[in-house]
Amino acid sequence: MAEQPPINSSSGQNFWHMEYMEAGLIQGSRIARVIFDGQSAFQSAQIIDTEPFGRTLVLDGKVQSSEADEWVYHEALVQPAMMAHAAPRRVFIAGGGEGATAREVLRHKDVTECVMVDLDEEVVQLCKEHMPNHHQGAFNDPRLTLLFSDAVAYLRENSELFDILIIDVPDPLEGGPAYLLYTQEFYALAMTRLAPGGIIVTQAGPCGPTNVTEVFSAINTTMSLVLGDTSPYRVYIPSFGTMWGFIAAGLPESPSVEGLMVSQVDERAATRLNTPLKYYDGVAHQGMLGLPKYLRAALDAELRVITNAAPLYAI
Amino acid sequence: MAEQPPINSSSGQNFWHMEYMEAGLIQGSRIARVIFDGQSAFQSAQIIDTEPFGRTLVLDGKVQSSEADEWVYHEALVQPAMMAHAAPRRVFIAGGGEGATAREVLRHKDVTECVMVDLDEEVVQLCKEHMPNHHQGAFNDPRLTLLFSDAVAYLRENSELFDILIIDVPDPLEGGPAYLLYTQEFYALAMTRLAPGGIIVTQAGPCGPTNVTEVFSAINTTMSLVLGDTSPYRVYIPSFGTMWGFIAAGLPESPSVEGLMVSQVDERAATRLNTPLKYYDGVAHQGMLGLPKYLRAALDAELRVITNAAPLYAI
Amino acid sequence: MAEQPPINSSSGQNFWHMEYMEAGLIQGSRIARVIFDGQSAFQSAQIIDTEPFGRTLVLDGKVQSSEADEWVYHEALVQPAMMAHAAPRRVFIAGGGEGATAREVLRHKDVTECVMVDLDEEVVQLCKEHMPNHHQGAFNDPRLTLLFSDAVAYLRENSELFDILIIDVPDPLEGGPAYLLYTQEFYALAMTRLAPGGIIVTQAGPCGPTNVTEVFSAINTTMSLVLGDTSPYRVYIPSFGTMWGFIAAGLPESPSVEGLMVSQVDERAATRLNTPLKYYDGVAHQGMLGLPKYLRAALDAELRVITNAAPLYAI
Amino acid sequence: MAEQPPINSSSGQNFWHMEYMEAGLIQGSRIARVIFDGQSAFQSAQIIDTEPFGRTLVLDGKVQSSEADEWVYHEALVQPAMMAHAAPRRVFIAGGGEGATAREVLRHKDVTECVMVDLDEEVVQLCKEHMPNHHQGAFNDPRLTLLFSDAVAYLRENSELFDILIIDVPDPLEGGPAYLLYTQEFYALAMTRLAPGGIIVTQAGPCGPTNVTEVFSAINTTMSLVLGDTSPYRVYIPSFGTMWGFIAAGLPESPSVEGLMVSQVDERAATRLNTPLKYYDGVAHQGMLGLPKYLRAALDAELRVITNAAPLYAI
Repeated sequence: MAEQPPINSSSGQNFWHMEYMEAGLIQGSRIARVIFDGQSAFQSAQIIDTEPFGRTLVLDGKVQSSEADEWVYHEALVQPAMMAHAAPRRVFIAGGGEGATAREVLRHKDVTECVMVDLDEEVVQLCKEHMPNHHQGAFNDPRLTLLFSDAVAYLRENSELFDILIIDVPDPLEGGPAYLLYTQEFYALAMTRLAPGGIIVTQAGPCGPTNVTEVFSAINTTMSLVLGDTSPYRVYIPSFGTMWGFIAAGLPESPSVEGLMVSQVDERAATRLNTPLKYYDGVAHQGMLGLPKYLRAALDAELRVITNAAPLYAI
Repeated sequence: MAEQPPINSSSGQNFWHMEYMEAGLIQGSRIARVIFDGQSAFQSAQIIDTEPFGRTLVLDGKVQSSEADEWVYHEALVQPAMMAHAAPRRVFIAGGGEGATAREVLRHKDVTECVMVDLDEEVVQLCKEHMPNHHQGAFNDPRLTLLFSDAVAYLRENSELFDILIIDVPDPLEGGPAYLLYTQEFYALAMTRLAPGGIIVTQAGPCGPTNVTEVFSAINTTMSLVLGDTSPYRVYIPSFGTMWGFIAAGLPESPSVEGLMVSQVDERAATRLNTPLKYYDGVAHQGMLGLPKYLRAALDAELRVITNAAPLYAI
Repeated sequence: MAEQPPINSSSGQNFWHMEYMEAGLIQGSRIARVIFDGQSAFQSAQIIDTEPFGRTLVLDGKVQSSEADEWVYHEALVQPAMMAHAAPRRVFIAGGGEGATAREVLRHKDVTECVMVDLDEEVVQLCKEHMPNHHQGAFNDPRLTLLFSDAVAYLRENSELFDILIIDVPDPLEGGPAYLLYTQEFYALAMTRLAPGGIIVTQAGPCGPTNVTEVFSAINTTMSLVLGDTSPYRVYIPSFGTMWGFIAAGLPESPSVEGLMVSQVDERAATRLNTPLKYYDGVAHQGMLGLPKYLRAALDAELRVITNAAPLYAI
Repeated sequence: MAEQPPINSSSGQNFWHMEYMEAGLIQGSRIARVIFDGQSAFQSAQIIDTEPFGRTLVLDGKVQSSEADEWVYHEALVQPAMMAHAAPRRVFIAGGGEGATAREVLRHKDVTECVMVDLDEEVVQLCKEHMPNHHQGAFNDPRLTLLFSDAVAYLRENSELFDILIIDVPDPLEGGPAYLLYTQEFYALAMTRLAPGGIIVTQAGPCGPTNVTEVFSAINTTMSLVLGDTSPYRVYIPSFGTMWGFIAAGLPESPSVEGLMVSQVDERAATRLNTPLKYYDGVAHQGMLGLPKYLRAALDAELRVITNAAPLYAI
């Protein structure tokens, strides 16, 4: 049998980030260097270099994104909706602290404004300073408007319309204010902020065989109750230790992410982007949208609707 | 922050299966019950019930398959090649100890013979006794011929031809005899044992963003050197903690797995199978074959060829 | 920096026994072999070979005793009281499942009867079968009377007197019936079962700088309330991951363990025992009784009294 | 069974310090806060707050001392030799980075000079800044001379004599320069730097039942070859996960640590110290010196002598 690697890191210490993925399942990543360990006004925050995943943001004990695979997550979150839209100009991001969601939006030459509303200024400053490979300068793009505030309140109080709304906040399970961005009420509000042809896309939690009903299926049912047809899809994120789901939907007349053809994706990528992607193109699109039977069955069977009064605190 | 589950299991003990997925990355599964812990003539073998994954076979310290996701692995290994073939009758399995690969083959009503050659009789007996949900009676199907022997030697010494050859043995990295089922020489031998229109498919190791070049890309390069066009594809296996790859290829005139259409898969599944699948159908097929850019780039860039003289002991 | 050992065991599997020693402190022992994993009528029970500690009994997730250091525990539990007594003939053991406490008693040539009352017959049978290096044949000694019953009930219902009473049951914290062997009421009962000159000794939980007040100090206060002067002492047990305490006390006219002199211990050991000890002699006795300042201060400061109505469920 | 504590800390992150105590034995401490993580010119250095042990210094992956038990270590290292000496005035410390060894020396009112020579200025500065509960102002005592240099070279190049020499450096196993403070040659040099009646004391590694022969017994044999009678003794240090040994010796006419009586220790403590101790007094002295049989047997059986040419790299 092959020799196994030692417990302590190449940098000499023995720190591990140990995270429960579900009951009885731990993923442990050896820490090469702790860059920051503290508390913001809203959450516990760490920036670490881990051996398997490089520079990593951890909030409230959970990996948010890592250098090794953040491009998978952020391209998957942003690009399908952007490519499906006829001509996205104005984009709204709820959350998105690392700046990588904005980076993906701003790859699109024709985007004129990207409004990013994140609750936690301290975490955004940490990312700005310590995670340059994540934001890659997006914070300096003049098309970005960065606000530190509650995204729901912002949308409620501002009547401007957007071509794309991107929801990049933690899962609805965790008790914090994030669950209010996954409710029937929220999708009804968001719908009124979509410009004609507009699309909303949300990160939607894990969707592997053992955890698809944790939140993914309920978010899908909730969205489709408000918005009609949805386009659920997923990618694999190693640092999350699971498949990760996303769901897009739009106004009745909006183009659908599910309906995008391989050639369309590739043509639009060729003309719209100022820098190349690493994960997403037409073939990858097919892979992301081609859901296995068990997953489609779980979506079909899901009856739970998330409301402001009845969030998904646990399963 | 949500309360986390405790370290010890519901059954009261505190045992964990701790497995290095790569350097600095551990997946730990809480053990609910140890069913068997011993050594066969060839390897260390355990059968355990883990909390996240149910009944699980572990060989030489690595999870081989678990109740929670073995159906993902085994459908992915077997069904694409079986569906791509015009009319598979005779099937060969190298390895396949749990009996679940045979189970998938024998779902096909028109299969007349399935020859399974596994090295380790003791492990097969353990699976037969303790993993009924894996084999589901496949060992009792009269169409199965089960031999305990070296699969390479069997193919070398028997000139019978097969419609489908399925390679279900450990990765080529691990020093044991398994690497001889991933070499240029092996594929040349296997080719001579394919009946006209025949297809060979192999499990091909991890293929996530952080480990696609471990063995997957080299197996693909090696296969295509011998067999021409290959169909690489992948699924996510939670208990392996990563995306898992498979590669199919055939004789020059054989149908290709990559070329299978959604409707073909669904029509053939409807007519050929005696029991329904849980993971695989036409849409899932598209998902499995739709490889992301980085993965196709890794395949394109790979130059390593695995030979009997130069196996892939390490990367 | 020195190379670190690998995560998986020499026997090829990757199982670890992970035990919380206190909040935020885990001791993990690599398992070389699982001998037994099951449930008795009373508790979860495992017998494992661990790499650091050899053959080990685990009950309800906690190491009870291991080959590597059980002799430290069992000599420390038994020999000081036996040596302090003028001429011990009749000995009572509450608990003592592994048979090693009886072994220590039966080393004394002049012992005529040892009554051992353990609740859990299944666990005793497991130890008899799988832990021969623990009991070393003690179960076959004709002087041993082994009963499967409740030790408190036995003492209540039988009026026979003993020279030595040995309490070898789990800590009073854990909710089970064991806490009833640490209460004021129990010590009052036990006192009536001591023959003139008799001594009672109990295992008394951890007593290191971080955990001395968990149960040790409260047991000492409770015993001294009933029995007057106590002799608290301790040894280090690696597999328990901490210093471990014991407390002896007697009738007003009984000899005290604390008062034993080096030369007395060595003379009595030389004449009374049929086999040599590994840990205990006169010098070791001084080491065990010579408590550090902080520990004596903790004992002096302790006011908690354990009663049947108010056990020590938590600190 | 009692509920177990969660994996993540009260401060919200999930970092653990995981340290191999020996092959197959891990001690894991949950980290509440990372204060510093970096590299000095000589070693990897961390300062962390752990839940079980408070503020902790970690060097090259190993806990050096923690708030919860450093007083046990430092009193044990310093006080027995200081109390055994007739009237210690001038004291030399090799190592001692945290300042706690100096603190113990400077408790003695009659000490006129304490020369501390530590190799690693960066680590000492870290301790000065972040570990005030360790040094308690010792760095500001005018009697302290603090030098950043090689202690062996210092002793070789300076002919001044000391009443007490204290060796507070890492174990001789680890390849670094520290092993040169445990050799026959070093003890011969040190002997020439002892004033009449002088005593040398060294930390001497783990000495529990499973690890007493790792380095402790060999250091004892080496010291006694040069210095004659030695006084080996030990205490339990929870954050080291084991019993820890120390060895004192002196010139032929020097008083012996082993020969100190209970009353002497208490009388000298009462008159010599300016602040009270927490661990050490006359009774504790007896406990520390009262070695168990197995440990004395291990010392008697040890034949290895550590020399500059043959350090103890491994056992």
